[in-house]
Amino acid sequence: MKIDVLSLFPEMFTGVFGSSILKKAAEKNVVEYNVVNFRDYADNKHQTVDDYPYGGGAGMVLKPQPIFDAVDHLTKSNEHTKPRVILLCPQGKVLTQKVSEELAQEQHLIFICGHYEGYDERIREHVVTDEISIGDYVLTGGELGAMVVIDSVVRLLPGVLGNEDSPILDSFSSGLLEHPQYTRPANFRGMTVPDVLTSGNHKNIDEWREKESILRTLQRRPDLLENYPLTDKHKQWINDWKKEHKENK
Amino acid sequence: MKIDVLSLFPEMFTGVFGSSILKKAAEKNVVEYNVVNFRDYADNKHQTVDDYPYGGGAGMVLKPQPIFDAVDHLTKSNEHTKPRVILLCPQGKVLTQKVSEELAQEQHLIFICGHYEGYDERIREHVVTDEISIGDYVLTGGELGAMVVIDSVVRLLPGVLGNEDSPILDSFSSGLLEHPQYTRPANFRGMTVPDVLTSGNHKNIDEWREKESILRTLQRRPDLLENYPLTDKHKQWINDWKKEHKENK
Repeated sequence: MKIDVLSLFPEMFTGVFGSSILKKAAEKNVVEYNVVNFRDYADNKHQTVDDYPYGGGAGMVLKPQPIFDAVDHLTKSNEHTKPRVILLCPQGKVLTQKVSEELAQEQHLIFICGHYEGYDERIREHVVTDEISIGDYVLTGGELGAMVVIDSVVRLLPGVLGNEDSPILDSFSSGLLEHPQYTRPANFRGMTVPDVLTSGNHKNIDEWREKESILRTLQRRPDLLENYPLTDKHKQWINDWKKEHKENK
Repeated sequence: MKIDVLSLFPEMFTGVFGSSILKKAAEKNVVEYNVVNFRDYADNKHQTVDDYPYGGGAGMVLKPQPIFDAVDHLTKSNEHTKPRVILLCPQGKVLTQKVSEELAQEQHLIFICGHYEGYDERIREHVVTDEISIGDYVLTGGELGAMVVIDSVVRLLPGVLGNEDSPILDSFSSGLLEHPQYTRPANFRGMTVPDVLTSGNHKNIDEWREKESILRTLQRRPDLLENYPLTDKHKQWINDWKKEHKENK
């Protein structure tokens, strides 16, 4: 996969692309990163990339020309692939694991990161194929959003995660939140591990984990249960918990 | 504000803390960043920070000792403040602008970033005050999540954003998505700016922007309108749009 990033702060990406899984993916040639300062594409004397908004108002707006030309150039230099051009912005579709899985099927992604400026609407309409938001909060720029999308996509590419990087945190793949985990020591400063986990009885361990997973999801993210195929046993656990919880009030 | 980060990949933070607004905030002494490799706190010979899960299963689990000792040390070295200790994990409360606004009131934040390992449950129960998730997608570690929370919090601290960094993207503050923005040239490769924006009639411009903002939110994020105090005029725009949209089907 080819990943191009357009940003006015290319140095922000160095640490993230140069560490851990994203670094390993590049070393294995599964992915190639290319961070471009789109100021280099500005065709005016002062290399200006933004200007005042038509109609007045606070803030600056990114000019169309540097972005159009940068995307044109990156598209032509990879002519065998048709890139998805992703704009990070609060108006975008909210990122979910399903969106990441879909993007992981692509050959070429181009990310456009604005930085507290707005975007000229013609960029959205004529260059961008996908507008993505990573969540309902305000960030100073699109850079962190691009890193988040890239991390969630690259780890899904074949050959990137080895056995040693087992997806223990993959809560959203099962549709439930993860059950509690414990490791040694069994007694740490008086805080102990639940007996079932050291019992050696794997049937009981599996059942304990399944139950904790259901009850944790119920308490923290009941919205995730709405589309989950609950069994009769699950419903019983939920009813018992609700009854107990009510009595303790 | 004091911000401590516990991570096994401290180098990931260099580019982000050293650029743009987050860098300026540190230069103005509004915030102080301290990224700590918690492996340095491991009290065993090989500086091991993770171990196999009790009860079996794939993946590794972060041991309690290094995290307990690191947080103890960081808390004691800032004894005048009581820190919020934030764990980045998929099971956490989903980050919203409101959570960021609340965290921006604190004096001291400590972030714990795991990296494809699970966390020993005793860390969650006895050290952590807040579990936060930045969204419903899987990342390789908590580092990007910590950067996202930190960026969204630090930009809210008094004195950080100057006039030049006007919050033009602050969609979530108004409760609506931003209207389209345009800048020069008025005609770029045949793509033109809406006439109203170059008319000089500010009443019309304001009304156009308000309407575009309402209709964009309606089309892209109808959930945001559920709690928005719509006026009769807004409702009329929405009804007109729906009628028109139906006829065109």
